[in-house]
Amino acid sequence: MIVHMSQSATSEQIEQVTERIRALNRRPHVRRGERTVIGVPGLGDGGRQELEALRAAPGVESVRPPEHPYPLAGRLPGQGRTVVEAGGVRFGGGEVVVIAGPCSVESREQLSETARAVAAAGASMLRGGAYKPRTSPYDFQGLGLEALGLLREAGAETGLPVVTEVLSTEDVEVVAEFADVLQVGARNMQNFALLRRLASAPRPVLLKRGPSATVREWLLAAEYLLSGGNADVILCERGIKTFETETRNTLDLAGLALARELSHLPVIADPSHATGRRSLVPAASRAAVAAGADGLMVEVHPRPERALSDGPQSLDLEGFAALMRGLRAPLPPVARRAELKESYQEEAGELV
Amino acid sequence: MIVHMSQSATSEQIEQVTERIRALNRRPHVRRGERTVIGVPGLGDGGRQELEALRAAPGVESVRPPEHPYPLAGRLPGQGRTVVEAGGVRFGGGEVVVIAGPCSVESREQLSETARAVAAAGASMLRGGAYKPRTSPYDFQGLGLEALGLLREAGAETGLPVVTEVLSTEDVEVVAEFADVLQVGARNMQNFALLRRLASAPRPVLLKRGPSATVREWLLAAEYLLSGGNADVILCERGIKTFETETRNTLDLAGLALARELSHLPVIADPSHATGRRSLVPAASRAAVAAGADGLMVEVHPRPERALSDGPQSLDLEGFAALMRGLRAPLPPVARRAELKESYQEEAGELV
Amino acid sequence: MIVHMSQSATSEQIEQVTERIRALNRRPHVRRGERTVIGVPGLGDGGRQELEALRAAPGVESVRPPEHPYPLAGRLPGQGRTVVEAGGVRFGGGEVVVIAGPCSVESREQLSETARAVAAAGASMLRGGAYKPRTSPYDFQGLGLEALGLLREAGAETGLPVVTEVLSTEDVEVVAEFADVLQVGARNMQNFALLRRLASAPRPVLLKRGPSATVREWLLAAEYLLSGGNADVILCERGIKTFETETRNTLDLAGLALARELSHLPVIADPSHATGRRSLVPAASRAAVAAGADGLMVEVHPRPERALSDGPQSLDLEGFAALMRGLRAPLPPVARRAELKESYQEEAGELV
Amino acid sequence: MIVHMSQSATSEQIEQVTERIRALNRRPHVRRGERTVIGVPGLGDGGRQELEALRAAPGVESVRPPEHPYPLAGRLPGQGRTVVEAGGVRFGGGEVVVIAGPCSVESREQLSETARAVAAAGASMLRGGAYKPRTSPYDFQGLGLEALGLLREAGAETGLPVVTEVLSTEDVEVVAEFADVLQVGARNMQNFALLRRLASAPRPVLLKRGPSATVREWLLAAEYLLSGGNADVILCERGIKTFETETRNTLDLAGLALARELSHLPVIADPSHATGRRSLVPAASRAAVAAGADGLMVEVHPRPERALSDGPQSLDLEGFAALMRGLRAPLPPVARRAELKESYQEEAGELV
Repeated sequence: MIVHMSQSATSEQIEQVTERIRALNRRPHVRRGERTVIGVPGLGDGGRQELEALRAAPGVESVRPPEHPYPLAGRLPGQGRTVVEAGGVRFGGGEVVVIAGPCSVESREQLSETARAVAAAGASMLRGGAYKPRTSPYDFQGLGLEALGLLREAGAETGLPVVTEVLSTEDVEVVAEFADVLQVGARNMQNFALLRRLASAPRPVLLKRGPSATVREWLLAAEYLLSGGNADVILCERGIKTFETETRNTLDLAGLALARELSHLPVIADPSHATGRRSLVPAASRAAVAAGADGLMVEVHPRPERALSDGPQSLDLEGFAALMRGLRAPLPPVARRAELKESYQEEAGELV
Repeated sequence: MIVHMSQSATSEQIEQVTERIRALNRRPHVRRGERTVIGVPGLGDGGRQELEALRAAPGVESVRPPEHPYPLAGRLPGQGRTVVEAGGVRFGGGEVVVIAGPCSVESREQLSETARAVAAAGASMLRGGAYKPRTSPYDFQGLGLEALGLLREAGAETGLPVVTEVLSTEDVEVVAEFADVLQVGARNMQNFALLRRLASAPRPVLLKRGPSATVREWLLAAEYLLSGGNADVILCERGIKTFETETRNTLDLAGLALARELSHLPVIADPSHATGRRSLVPAASRAAVAAGADGLMVEVHPRPERALSDGPQSLDLEGFAALMRGLRAPLPPVARRAELKESYQEEAGELV
Repeated sequence: MIVHMSQSATSEQIEQVTERIRALNRRPHVRRGERTVIGVPGLGDGGRQELEALRAAPGVESVRPPEHPYPLAGRLPGQGRTVVEAGGVRFGGGEVVVIAGPCSVESREQLSETARAVAAAGASMLRGGAYKPRTSPYDFQGLGLEALGLLREAGAETGLPVVTEVLSTEDVEVVAEFADVLQVGARNMQNFALLRRLASAPRPVLLKRGPSATVREWLLAAEYLLSGGNADVILCERGIKTFETETRNTLDLAGLALARELSHLPVIADPSHATGRRSLVPAASRAAVAAGADGLMVEVHPRPERALSDGPQSLDLEGFAALMRGLRAPLPPVARRAELKESYQEEAGELV
Repeated sequence: MIVHMSQSATSEQIEQVTERIRALNRRPHVRRGERTVIGVPGLGDGGRQELEALRAAPGVESVRPPEHPYPLAGRLPGQGRTVVEAGGVRFGGGEVVVIAGPCSVESREQLSETARAVAAAGASMLRGGAYKPRTSPYDFQGLGLEALGLLREAGAETGLPVVTEVLSTEDVEVVAEFADVLQVGARNMQNFALLRRLASAPRPVLLKRGPSATVREWLLAAEYLLSGGNADVILCERGIKTFETETRNTLDLAGLALARELSHLPVIADPSHATGRRSLVPAASRAAVAAGADGLMVEVHPRPERALSDGPQSLDLEGFAALMRGLRAPLPPVARRAELKESYQEEAGELV
């Protein structure tokens, strides 16, 4: 439910309303503006009547279900883009943030070598998996706490802030201690218990799109974070599941553009998981940036053929440097007609 | 990794090996037979060497990665079906177990009325959501603990054991106290933290197939439960996401049949979520049973038009009774050729 | 556009209207009833005005775009099912018509042996590919005209009418000469030139659902046939393309049930193409029948391992006979609760 | 089958082999090089033996099935890109060819106004539908021959060559008379009768990817054209069908990049059908170009709100001019780390 305060509502009245909401064991989300709006996440029948009774409270104009399906993640007409700052890096500010690193942290040497190389090539943030969500219980599950320490070490060495995935509510606290950004993996996009816990974490959240999530479902997952109190959400398109088997997933760049149209939040792309093929990562990266991506998340490994996970989609160090050079190259030119008739050349002058 | 003991290995030797595995902080899964086999779930580099050193231990024949991708969930040639018993109900024993109840527990009256009606119509188990995974944070999220109490009450009243979804590792203990079967929802099928926790829960687990999970990924999720120590797993096909929008999901009955071919575990179907349309539930139910389903899970509500969730796919009480009658009706007859030539009638006698 | 005649319109008036429509180079589709309705397929701007001018003609009540998206293929509330008769076989009359035969006609021996065996086992119609739509130009493309002759021969020998695919408008005439039913393959479901040509063919059409067609698109393809003048349309669900790769396609039986709900036309299923795996064909066949399928179309080959196409999904002769026996077996029983309390037994008596 | 001639084979020997192939009613496809290779499209059992007998012919080294699934469409290691010239426009030569025009040709005024505006804004080719493949028979089906004339007129007026769709084998001849490029629509990608007919048409073919075609199936459809004798094939990615409903289709740019990796043929993108939303066309266009697209095909209408088809995805004239300007804008800059440590700045100099 959404409580709309009247234009003349006082701070005191707002405070009273939020207190009554808290007394119902709900966490109010206050958005101040010309008219203050207070979001109240999901309510069972138990509290609904009490909440609706707030209509009679001083300063309250209305209590009603949200008109917009995701009032906090959604973008109002004319609204600008939100900049999310994480470890000194700004997402959504008009520059392309490149996050790079290995799929899994495997050893101090592997991570340090990768971190130094991607920093040198121009990456702004380091990624690396400590807790790995693996389809099979018999696959490498990550080094856990040890990896978190190595990530912090490599981050300190190179000046790169660190992003890593958190798999479980129990791990949120410890991961938040070590990492600058907490990643929600694609398969956890609708792990609502995890989203609720991260909504009160003291770190920005990188929310990957689920492999079968519509853009709408993705933004509603972000709404769980925002309505729960964490305003620092970065969205990440990483490919969706389709009938096509020659790429690991299908990179949905029109979906990325749509997410940026419907939401004010920054949106980045993960070309590595989206394609699953090293040779396609540079083209996919350039395409994502051209589609408006606020950043990229790229898997890099010093020796991809020996990686414990996701080797086929990881760039080697030189491959990553080449990708970075490619991001600075201009788009190819548009072909011209062999001969323009004079009359059109004039019009062309007006229109183009 | 899988430790294969030699045929002559003694119980003592087996015990020594499992102890050494536990000393590596791994939970061994022992399958005794002519040759005992010990499964060791996902190992990082840290413990791999120590584990491989077990090769030299007395009674050990080999230590190697599993040949089968899901050695515990998989079905060997000639292997029979596993019967999972839950609250006195047997899944996989050749009879069709019908689970029915409301999507969400909304009140004592609603649940009790439904439970009594579905019991009267022939259901064997009661379902009802206490903690609801909802796409939007503003939708009804379930009555939680209160609902658990009502479920137990209705179960006791009708003699029906109870299944309900558990959303979070934190809730496993309390839900296990109230429910006979713990359900993993489709969106949590690859919530590996939850699977690991449920692997040591003292209750059978109903594992729904993820909306974009292949049969292989589904069986690997079951392998997390089995390899972690919980052998009582019931699989549930509930429809997958496709381009088709006129049904909520696409019920994959060939996938259900394939899961029963590849695995010894019981597999049931949820025609309500699979179709999302009340009118299709009876046909989908009959089809699932004909495809080999070991059971059905059907949403029923006394007044679907007022349901707080999933009304359009819920049967009313009379609709459910009609569905049960339909499950007992014979298949329509096969058409015959107008006239069989004599020679073929003879052959028909041989072949048919 | 749809011309609705008034209740009092005379046969003469109806005739005048249809003549004026023909004068616009359109083929009117007349459905007589209490009020006669005349469908006029797709009109460009050219003829629209002239058509709308019919509003002033005697006996005409209104000229308007169809309210129903597929007024001829759609099923009105309370409307019964249409029976399509083809070569003496009745589709949609309450019995399950089984069509069987090889994917491709390969030789007289192969076809004759198959035809005699499937007839003996209880099939009602013979299938066999003469013109094969193959993904690769280097694959076997069918024996063409020679195969048509063999099909007619085997049909005559066994008393089975014949269905075979027509790939091209040019072939419609010759195929109609040899076959009892003309099949439109899945990849041609929206080959509108072919549909238009078949709309005036003197044979029933078996219209397969496209691999990525919604039920709505499928029924609209049928509407091309009906509105063009061919009322004898049999629909065939043969699996849709999804992310699942362990089956060739995903058999959509809820979609089949939905097509039967939305349309009065008979709907059959092709479990062979839908699954692509021989072992799944029997379960898929039974499930289709239980979902309401008016028939089945099954690939059978005397030696599937040597088939020139689709061997892995073809049943051998004994496999087909076993499938036919399976179609006559009852559904497994529904489990009962261990003990019903007395009060519920009473209610059970009322409800069940 | 593929006939490989020996290195020393004479022109006469090659000629004799091709004649013998023609005598088998097959059309040989000759690729001359250091060793001449002769492709023979799909052979039934009938001719296989005779063809294999060619092994004994002078100058023949081997006769075998193709090793590569699409030997003519495929790209050998190190092979360059093919340039397809159509009406004076070069596809695949490093410049981006922009094709623009209305979905359907509706009138002389509409087409002429559009053609002049897109020419002025920098388009190189005019598109416009004369024969429209419509899901419903009651939708506008195109002006047919009249539209072909208008297209030629508008092309002559603006100097733009013309591309239009051909729906049926019967129409190939007349459309080829009026148009510079013949388009195969997505739903006809596997209309093999049409492909075979177009293989001998005297015009380049624009082959759209089917809505559920894998990249492999798409290239095999191209192989039908190439092996049948038409070397001038332009591929067009136009979005695939997925579960996502908020865009009309899912634009698969990694698939486009993969097609350009696997094939030497030019590949363009259709952002209008791919997204179905006007607002997403500019971002999708830029992304396609960045992914390597050799061209774009964009729907433009002077008054999209009145278009007879595809209005919601059509740009208006000013919108198209803005899109063209956007294609010339640079990619946004890559963010830099706040402060690079000195040591990495040195490395950066080496690597970047």
